[in-house]
Amino acid sequence: MAYLNENYLKLQAGYLFPEIARRVRAFCENNPEAAKRLIRCGIGDVTEPLPQAAVSAMKQAVGELGARETFRGYGPEQGYEFLRSKIAQSDYRDRGIEISEDEIFVSDGSKCDCGNILDILGHQNKIAITDPVYPVYVDTNVMAGHTGQVRNDGSYEGITYLPCTIENNFVADPPKEHVDVVYLCFPNNPTGAVASSERLSRWIDYAREHNALILFDAAYEAYIGDPAFPHSIYEIPGAAEYAIEFRSFSKTGGFTGVRCGFTVMPRSVRAKTGGDKSLPLHPLWHRRWSTKSNGVSYPVQRGAEALYSEAGRRQVQALIDHYMGNARILRDAATSAGFTVHGGTNAPYICFFRVSAFNSRENAEEVGQRLRMAA
Amino acid sequence: MAYLNENYLKLQAGYLFPEIARRVRAFCENNPEAAKRLIRCGIGDVTEPLPQAAVSAMKQAVGELGARETFRGYGPEQGYEFLRSKIAQSDYRDRGIEISEDEIFVSDGSKCDCGNILDILGHQNKIAITDPVYPVYVDTNVMAGHTGQVRNDGSYEGITYLPCTIENNFVADPPKEHVDVVYLCFPNNPTGAVASSERLSRWIDYAREHNALILFDAAYEAYIGDPAFPHSIYEIPGAAEYAIEFRSFSKTGGFTGVRCGFTVMPRSVRAKTGGDKSLPLHPLWHRRWSTKSNGVSYPVQRGAEALYSEAGRRQVQALIDHYMGNARILRDAATSAGFTVHGGTNAPYICFFRVSAFNSRENAEEVGQRLRMAA
Repeated sequence: MAYLNENYLKLQAGYLFPEIARRVRAFCENNPEAAKRLIRCGIGDVTEPLPQAAVSAMKQAVGELGARETFRGYGPEQGYEFLRSKIAQSDYRDRGIEISEDEIFVSDGSKCDCGNILDILGHQNKIAITDPVYPVYVDTNVMAGHTGQVRNDGSYEGITYLPCTIENNFVADPPKEHVDVVYLCFPNNPTGAVASSERLSRWIDYAREHNALILFDAAYEAYIGDPAFPHSIYEIPGAAEYAIEFRSFSKTGGFTGVRCGFTVMPRSVRAKTGGDKSLPLHPLWHRRWSTKSNGVSYPVQRGAEALYSEAGRRQVQALIDHYMGNARILRDAATSAGFTVHGGTNAPYICFFRVSAFNSRENAEEVGQRLRMAA
Repeated sequence: MAYLNENYLKLQAGYLFPEIARRVRAFCENNPEAAKRLIRCGIGDVTEPLPQAAVSAMKQAVGELGARETFRGYGPEQGYEFLRSKIAQSDYRDRGIEISEDEIFVSDGSKCDCGNILDILGHQNKIAITDPVYPVYVDTNVMAGHTGQVRNDGSYEGITYLPCTIENNFVADPPKEHVDVVYLCFPNNPTGAVASSERLSRWIDYAREHNALILFDAAYEAYIGDPAFPHSIYEIPGAAEYAIEFRSFSKTGGFTGVRCGFTVMPRSVRAKTGGDKSLPLHPLWHRRWSTKSNGVSYPVQRGAEALYSEAGRRQVQALIDHYMGNARILRDAATSAGFTVHGGTNAPYICFFRVSAFNSRENAEEVGQRLRMAA
């Protein structure tokens, strides 16, 4: 009989969000009256329609595939040049960050990238995560065999946990000890915290000192309204040698069901062999995509491209304004209800108990009302 | 400095198809006149437009995402029920094979599935592949650390190679020795060989005797015209305990750029721990998808669903007839040119030197003409 990957047996219960869905279903079945009024504020899933710019572009792309003269088969595994160049230009070079288009890898979402990146890293790495954390970072490391067993409190042996607390404003500082790989996410999921350049600089200093690799999840960067906060880790000098950045169109273009994101893999990021030879990671990541994928659906890439058009940008901004309007309502209501509230100003998550601002305006207002009544 | 996955350093050159593309580009740059007449018959990429049923369904799905009332965010990680049930019913139960919809896992393509399946398998497995072989099977095992170094002939230490030759009609028989995991692909890429029930039964007998796991790639099953040949490994009694099947919409609906395929993971397939406890693989595969993916783009899944409509089926059949018409032209021309020809009758690949039938009719005729002239 073939051997299975025993690391999977260390995982606790199901993956968090399907497990939440299961419990909500059970609650609704047992409480049909309450179920009618249930508003889901747990999962960060968007509710508002796709920007019309993306809708038009995707329809047109589908039409192209339906005609002989404009049909396209396999695309480049790392993404079409038309999208990679838009990303590199608009999200980076226009903001003074030197990233070239071949350092952009288009994917079917940040969640996938956060897991897949482990394909090219060694098993000897000492891993650090902030706590609380997006469960994908932990679970994919468990599955890859980078941890020991689970402890009673749900944490895993072998992982360095960096507590995010009121005291550190939910932005963990680097640890005293050595780690090889650190996951950071700002604006943070789940706390809604945002990191200043000064706080991120401490991490780049740490990376330089320890030759550590930072996996920076910037899926929520578009929700930063305050110009004082950096959108990309590469705004911190030196970061292009130590950091890989993940981004997503899920929470900008409402692409949670369309599926598109990307990784920024600078050519200057290096890692080492057991024999202490150091090599750039870019060719390994390129090879991973060539071998294990045929790239992202063509119409999806055209939809993502359209988010960078003038109309697309306006429509994306309107979506962000909408959700941040929800965040304000939820923050205000929670504050008047007497909760101490974090997040929700440069991030779509509000943290007293964690509430997601991804909802219709009507639902956000109703939740606000209920919070006030609960006070 | 973080450790990289050193197994990547064992890989030979680039992944095969990007490497072919690179060499073709170089040839064309150096031979601009010849380049004008170049017809690509190497890569199995389709050339004909998407079936109109898929085009309409995808456009409609994009439209749904553009309206508030019909918008959908995150879908089920394993695929929408509407598609999984169509697949289970049409591809399996209608053909007398008991597969339930929750044994179908929708993916962004067979290439990805063939690589990702290794996530849930242990590193101790002894792997067998047929030779020649679709390079993804080998390269993903190299990357996962399941092989030793490469030999001078391009083969890897630690893999059991099963030669496919004229003598065995390009269908390898099971080896004498024990292996844990076997990759089989029929109709075969690259040889165009097809396996009878009798030949596949030998493999199921082997799997039963050795408790081996068969990874069965059926991406080209739709090209089987002769009713004597099985389309699915599950047509062989007992296979549901020993085989995982991969299928693709790439070569049926022309989805090479749209990206959709699926895995069949029967609940009855088991694997073992190092401690010799045996467990079903289905929950591990389910957990892998929940943790490392958010499923396939909604419009893409609607496009795939449409291939099962009455119009969709007709249009898919027309595509297959077209490519098999090409195959006939290429076979005939190669035969008249004096080559000994294999494949191309129940498969879209013809093997003298390997030629792909995925092309326009015009190009196929021109290649046929050139072959005759070469004779």
